[in-house]
Amino acid sequence: MQFDTAKLNQLSSRYRAHLINSLSGFKSANLIGTVDKQGQLNLSIVSSVVHLGANPPLIGMIMRPNSVPRHTFENITNTQVFTVNHVSGEFYQAGHQTSARYDKSQSEFEQVGLTPEWKENFNAPFVAQSKLKYGVRLVEVIHLNVNDTEMVIGEIVLLDVNDKVIQQDGYIDIEALNTVAVSGLDSYHSTSRLARLSYAKTNRLPSEIKLTTSNEEVGQ
Amino acid sequence: MQFDTAKLNQLSSRYRAHLINSLSGFKSANLIGTVDKQGQLNLSIVSSVVHLGANPPLIGMIMRPNSVPRHTFENITNTQVFTVNHVSGEFYQAGHQTSARYDKSQSEFEQVGLTPEWKENFNAPFVAQSKLKYGVRLVEVIHLNVNDTEMVIGEIVLLDVNDKVIQQDGYIDIEALNTVAVSGLDSYHSTSRLARLSYAKTNRLPSEIKLTTSNEEVGQ
Repeated sequence: MQFDTAKLNQLSSRYRAHLINSLSGFKSANLIGTVDKQGQLNLSIVSSVVHLGANPPLIGMIMRPNSVPRHTFENITNTQVFTVNHVSGEFYQAGHQTSARYDKSQSEFEQVGLTPEWKENFNAPFVAQSKLKYGVRLVEVIHLNVNDTEMVIGEIVLLDVNDKVIQQDGYIDIEALNTVAVSGLDSYHSTSRLARLSYAKTNRLPSEIKLTTSNEEVGQ
Repeated sequence: MQFDTAKLNQLSSRYRAHLINSLSGFKSANLIGTVDKQGQLNLSIVSSVVHLGANPPLIGMIMRPNSVPRHTFENITNTQVFTVNHVSGEFYQAGHQTSARYDKSQSEFEQVGLTPEWKENFNAPFVAQSKLKYGVRLVEVIHLNVNDTEMVIGEIVLLDVNDKVIQQDGYIDIEALNTVAVSGLDSYHSTSRLARLSYAKTNRLPSEIKLTTSNEEVGQ
């Protein structure tokens, strides 16, 4: 089936939201932890965290000012820090529930049953249940005029991960942590590795890189 | 295990690339099809396509000018169009192989064994083997000063997908298409749906949305 611009424009707003959100492919599922200047905690699920570069270690994230992560965006611009916490199969329903429109005076941690965790010298809450989490310092906000969204760019300054899932070359076996993937607006998926493939060269086909993670080691 | 900025800075460049690329979570796997003004085809795999908005239908993509998709970036700025093609389990090895440093005079389609497909009035090649693909018109390139990467923003103008995997509400069952997810630089994963969850409300927990896709229908 083909959709051109005219046909896409005819779709109802909700149908188009589901359809277009499916097109990018699988997305990351992360909980963003922040606090406001009065100490009120906030937690919101986002599927738009994207790798920007390894040196310096940077991520980007797209935020819609009028959508639920509005409090998150305000807190980030006020406190200059936030946490990113991988959502795993054990608590993806609670993660999804953070997208309900709770009042600013309500902590999503409390509402959905997740536990805030603090780390020394870092002024944003981590999610205790998450098995891969990091603290990010705000570097820049770029306003995207094309649709009035904000691209938040931040530097990873504090990473916490079980070292048993880090492979010899630095790759983190996020599948062993049971990190989930998202598709569309609301579909959550676990994964099964097809393969890690070696760095591609023009003169040969890629070979498979074996992993050393043992599921027993990470308590799955 | 904890890594702070000092510890991250001490890592070797290759180790850090693997580690930091693992942090965003699961990523999309897409092949970007372009052509230059002389008619030379190019195809490159990227994991940075991200949803920007549904109305207008926009995606973003991060490109490193010095990395393999350099020809892709040049072609996009010259021709103002490109295609995005979901990578599926049936051809992910060929997809990965497009990241080898082929000469500009070589077509990755030919080198890796994928088939270019043309659609009326659209000046970039699609991947015949891909089961979800769309044509994109360049809207804007934003240079990210923080690490000299380019954010390419484009509007989806032509979508081709098997309508049997489109659900009643517009959600596309990309798992039924066998679309793969990526982690880190080189790990490919198939997925298993945990659930689609209903729109979150503060006064109740999310319920599950049932899917109507039959695997037989999509020929899996």
